[in-house]
Amino acid sequence: MVYDQSKNMNSDSSFMQAMIYQIRALDPYGTMDNLSTDEMFEPFIIEKSKRKKIPVVGNMDHQTKSRIFVFYNTIASMIEKETEVMVSVIMDLSDEGFGRVLVYCGRLIVLNRTFRDAHRFGFDSLEKLINEGNKLVQSGKDAVKQFEEVARA
Amino acid sequence: MVYDQSKNMNSDSSFMQAMIYQIRALDPYGTMDNLSTDEMFEPFIIEKSKRKKIPVVGNMDHQTKSRIFVFYNTIASMIEKETEVMVSVIMDLSDEGFGRVLVYCGRLIVLNRTFRDAHRFGFDSLEKLINEGNKLVQSGKDAVKQFEEVARA
Repeated sequence: MVYDQSKNMNSDSSFMQAMIYQIRALDPYGTMDNLSTDEMFEPFIIEKSKRKKIPVVGNMDHQTKSRIFVFYNTIASMIEKETEVMVSVIMDLSDEGFGRVLVYCGRLIVLNRTFRDAHRFGFDSLEKLINEGNKLVQSGKDAVKQFEEVARA
Repeated sequence: MVYDQSKNMNSDSSFMQAMIYQIRALDPYGTMDNLSTDEMFEPFIIEKSKRKKIPVVGNMDHQTKSRIFVFYNTIASMIEKETEVMVSVIMDLSDEGFGRVLVYCGRLIVLNRTFRDAHRFGFDSLEKLINEGNKLVQSGKDAVKQFEEVARA
């Protein structure tokens, strides 16, 4: 899972950097202090064939929940940084892997994702994670721009 | 806790009726089928002095969570009925009684309530419950009207 950052240095590395902050924020005892970047991202990268094998019966893993939270909080923090509007995340996921994540600012929902198999949260590759993240950040920023008044309400 | 409905029949009884639907929706085994209206609303009515005595240490009662859900779902259902926009509720409450409830439609958040002592959820009287409910329904409807485009996004 070695990732060639040189290809798209700016937006890629800023998303990864923001995500590392979020991962560390949920690691108050510093158990990840000695991990490399690759090792920190490893749990987020699960190939499609492996994701399909994760059973969706049984209560979902607490760590998977944390990872979902980290990913969407990263998006929120990046939208916040660039639009200067406070952005929050609210997550309601049942142990059965059903639920929703909303990212919002003011009265505006900038991202609304429904889960039916949250057990299987993961990305094919680091590139895909970053692309997906950046795409959601961009669409969030567009929404804030489009409905400025609501976002600042 | 006998309540004189004749005073403000229309909006009061419609809020109560909508709330009874929500209570029954969470009672699939019909354990409340034989309760009177007063008995159904009784758990929602806790005098201020009694509320203050409810300890906020220790995990919060699952039934209190349900009651919060019922109250905000009632508001959502009434906004939905009158504006004809689909309205949803998302609730994220920790066992410590901290968290948030959002009521939203489309991309618009019509109600955002933060809890710091959800253990103590309750109203001084049935009048106060209904007044609070109707007030929130009204402000939700106003928000939908003001930001129609976002609500239908």
